[in-house]
Amino acid sequence: MVEERINIDQKFSLFADQWSPRVIAQMNEVQFKLARIEGEFVWHAHEDTDEAFIVIDGEMDLEFRDHVLTLRAGEMAIVSKGVEHKPVARTECRIMLIEPKGVINTGNTGGERTAPSDVWI
Amino acid sequence: MVEERINIDQKFSLFADQWSPRVIAQMNEVQFKLARIEGEFVWHAHEDTDEAFIVIDGEMDLEFRDHVLTLRAGEMAIVSKGVEHKPVARTECRIMLIEPKGVINTGNTGGERTAPSDVWI
Repeated sequence: MVEERINIDQKFSLFADQWSPRVIAQMNEVQFKLARIEGEFVWHAHEDTDEAFIVIDGEMDLEFRDHVLTLRAGEMAIVSKGVEHKPVARTECRIMLIEPKGVINTGNTGGERTAPSDVWI
Repeated sequence: MVEERINIDQKFSLFADQWSPRVIAQMNEVQFKLARIEGEFVWHAHEDTDEAFIVIDGEMDLEFRDHVLTLRAGEMAIVSKGVEHKPVARTECRIMLIEPKGVINTGNTGGERTAPSDVWI
């Protein structure tokens, strides 16, 4: 395998749909995913894993049951496993998610907002 | 534990030394580290793990024995486990490393460029 340069903006240019993470890289069993988000997602938790959010462009609120973190470009946060959270973005926000391969976007909630996992671009 | 907002630029403002990664976040057993690099590092490999590089600001060359990847801000690459590599930056470059807790910066090479691991800011 030859190592490759991965350009985050170029990868974002390859998809337009929101709330549908795309995998751009994998380190051991941890995947780096890009997502476009806008509006409110569903409350959910990931029972088996922490999850990292990095804002690439725009602004999002990471809502928890008892507080809200507003994250802007160049900011990140870790959601601990089992902690309920809801991402919200007033206008489109581009984020990177770092989490183990196989994590489902809606966690333990499921439903119509569930996107396929492990979709590479 | 209350989730916190982590601002990458603010974290960089807290240290000035080069080739000395600081941990800013941890997802499961994977750490997010910031480093300032300038000049040539040593050839090394990490026998037990892949390693992710994301350039936050500036430009670096990730040298391999048979090719070189030039990475600029907003670009990333995965170095597979066991693959020899040497980071080089003509002028100071600010990077994020994502790798399992405990990884040593000089890998299997060691020597005077070895920095303490697991140093949080």
